[in-house]
Amino acid sequence: MSAQVTSSDEAIRDVEAYMERLGEAARAAATVMRRTPTGPKNAALLAMAKRLEAARDEVLAANARDLARGRDGGLDAALLDRLELTPGRFDAMLEGLEQVAALPDPVGEIDSLRYRPSGIQVGQMRVPLGVIGIIYESRPNVTLEAASLCLKSGNAAILRGGSEARDSNAAIAACIRAGLLDAGLPEAAVQVVATTDRAAVGRLIAMPEYVDVIIPRGGKSLIERISREARVPVIKHLDGVCHVYVDATADLDKAFAIAVNAKTHRYGTCNTMETLLLDAPVAEALLPRLAAAYAEHGVELRGCERTRALLPGIAAASEEDWGAEYLAPVLALRVVEGIDAAVTHIERYGSHHTDAIITEDYALARRFMAEVDSSSVMVNASTRFADGFEYGLGAEIGISTDKLHARGPVGLEGLTTRKYVVLGDGQIRQ
Amino acid sequence: MSAQVTSSDEAIRDVEAYMERLGEAARAAATVMRRTPTGPKNAALLAMAKRLEAARDEVLAANARDLARGRDGGLDAALLDRLELTPGRFDAMLEGLEQVAALPDPVGEIDSLRYRPSGIQVGQMRVPLGVIGIIYESRPNVTLEAASLCLKSGNAAILRGGSEARDSNAAIAACIRAGLLDAGLPEAAVQVVATTDRAAVGRLIAMPEYVDVIIPRGGKSLIERISREARVPVIKHLDGVCHVYVDATADLDKAFAIAVNAKTHRYGTCNTMETLLLDAPVAEALLPRLAAAYAEHGVELRGCERTRALLPGIAAASEEDWGAEYLAPVLALRVVEGIDAAVTHIERYGSHHTDAIITEDYALARRFMAEVDSSSVMVNASTRFADGFEYGLGAEIGISTDKLHARGPVGLEGLTTRKYVVLGDGQIRQ
Repeated sequence: MSAQVTSSDEAIRDVEAYMERLGEAARAAATVMRRTPTGPKNAALLAMAKRLEAARDEVLAANARDLARGRDGGLDAALLDRLELTPGRFDAMLEGLEQVAALPDPVGEIDSLRYRPSGIQVGQMRVPLGVIGIIYESRPNVTLEAASLCLKSGNAAILRGGSEARDSNAAIAACIRAGLLDAGLPEAAVQVVATTDRAAVGRLIAMPEYVDVIIPRGGKSLIERISREARVPVIKHLDGVCHVYVDATADLDKAFAIAVNAKTHRYGTCNTMETLLLDAPVAEALLPRLAAAYAEHGVELRGCERTRALLPGIAAASEEDWGAEYLAPVLALRVVEGIDAAVTHIERYGSHHTDAIITEDYALARRFMAEVDSSSVMVNASTRFADGFEYGLGAEIGISTDKLHARGPVGLEGLTTRKYVVLGDGQIRQ
Repeated sequence: MSAQVTSSDEAIRDVEAYMERLGEAARAAATVMRRTPTGPKNAALLAMAKRLEAARDEVLAANARDLARGRDGGLDAALLDRLELTPGRFDAMLEGLEQVAALPDPVGEIDSLRYRPSGIQVGQMRVPLGVIGIIYESRPNVTLEAASLCLKSGNAAILRGGSEARDSNAAIAACIRAGLLDAGLPEAAVQVVATTDRAAVGRLIAMPEYVDVIIPRGGKSLIERISREARVPVIKHLDGVCHVYVDATADLDKAFAIAVNAKTHRYGTCNTMETLLLDAPVAEALLPRLAAAYAEHGVELRGCERTRALLPGIAAASEEDWGAEYLAPVLALRVVEGIDAAVTHIERYGSHHTDAIITEDYALARRFMAEVDSSSVMVNASTRFADGFEYGLGAEIGISTDKLHARGPVGLEGLTTRKYVVLGDGQIRQ
């Protein structure tokens, strides 16, 4: 097979030249992929699933090698968990390929085509972005998710996974490549960077001639570094400091259920609630009930003075707590005076990810939706719904807290752009 | 009035601190503008028109001072022309304000709101970008165009015009500010940078905490410098190397009319055709007729060998000619073998701005639309139509050849983004 993907670092001496070769091959493949109809793209996705199924033992063996190396190297339990391809996760990868194949192809869609006074018809056609670079950490299943979404949206992809998942990624990459070739598509449509040299990332994010956009997935420090150093546009999300605000007009049962779910459904996700804001009139009724529920889940509470007056046992929240993305069973609590104070708090301390109001009041719901400048704004729903699958995008390559291009969960559409098409009959400009 | 806008550089000693004050004020104003309904925004636009009308003499006198200084300083005729506010251009500014007021407000529009199996309703709501920095050169009417588009789309703007238009811009800025105050909107919603110090641009493009996006309008070197140095996203267009390809299946009369119009309608615009590609079978019939028409317009022709075999008098096109944006009465001509060669040429030498095919063949039209990766792709129409007004956007802040966020003419919609809204009834994630 191609020299572009090897599982040995020794083979890649000049990392810069290697990355440029990947870039050049990706650019050429993007030109082919851009014109590839839906049929062959779906065929490639299904062929990859077949190849993976056939290589199940090799892939799991490679993953076992990564896990052993990780354990020897002292990786912590959370990282080892993310690294592991359990049989369930393996099956989910296969299912994911079939799901992406079943999604409608966004490429070529023309939203509206309108006649203009000059006689021309003008519309916008959805087209691929080109070459997408994705940089991620330990989860090897991201390799396949990212590959399938980039492929279906008509892009070429260069994928750079974490060094701890080296063998797993190489084994998955071989299946991806075989699937592409089975369907007659260029193997460089999806390339997995084979070196774990960190200089590869530095080069990947600084080749505007070959790469159109970078999507980093991982910890905040990785994303900050990439945003700072990239010479191509970056679609990213940094923090998920998500709020639930319970207004005095809330249905208290809904408020209770959502406040518990938004915090305890999963702790490590970016759409988990990190601060609960309570309108003063409902604090007294709600706080003891909530405190009991959180105690049952082992959630540590940190409150403002007014919260602590009602829940004397809990710790005081500091200024840092308001801006904290705990990603852990810890919750900051604040009693506020109405929607204005809540919106002000969210604006000052939030990260523009996902924020929810609980209210039965129509005007307040409408105001919160208009005034809160977050990528997802919710009324009477758990912040945990901020997710590509829950939103019906079919799958997501990440959640963007950026403003330009894509905001919120990014699915196939976020991997495309729109060009203008003009249909005429010989029209000239007067 | 505010110390933020003065017409004297002397008042601004510390440019960095001054720009940060503008940024901070803009960020605060953006929070208000984001929530401002359509009515007050339109009222401000119409109030600006009244203020301008009342200040016509002062504005024209300020412009006369700029023109006199420009002449003394040896500005060339083209720059002086762009700098001049003729009575016609002044009236067009007033009319422009009324047109933008009449455009539908994009903010708050929800495209579709769909029920999901969980019971939540999910949609996307159009919202302002926040603070937009616009950097432009000599034309003072851009100050008003940019202000009106940013205002209508609910953004705050920081405008940095060319030093040659200093007095005109200050006079227009005073009317903008007065109009904002008349309508009860924050005066910092539109701020015109009052210093001509180049360090102001350097700071403006490097304040991600205050500025969400930069739109440079001007020459290629300005835009390249800004793209290289900016620490916030940039919406830009670099070159307009536009092509018309006349296929053998073209209607020759349409081809003739479009080829003449696309080159000669205006020479200095980015959507002007710079290279004409002719399918071999039609070259003989079309070239002499076109050459005569171009000669009448004084257009200099530079051709490939096969073109020169049919038009022996013309100069040979060099490799540089294929990539040239002449912005002048010069045209490169190349005879090619069919649509594949044309698309290959456009891909290699074009700038992804606007490219057109002339054909009566359905399949070729469809292929050209799908395969050419430009911000505008046209069939049987002059490239000169690539324009916000012609496309029905109402007005444009520029034309983007970028891929992310906005491509082609950028109107009000391009100055907004979309956030997700989720409406629930107490739903929690299972």
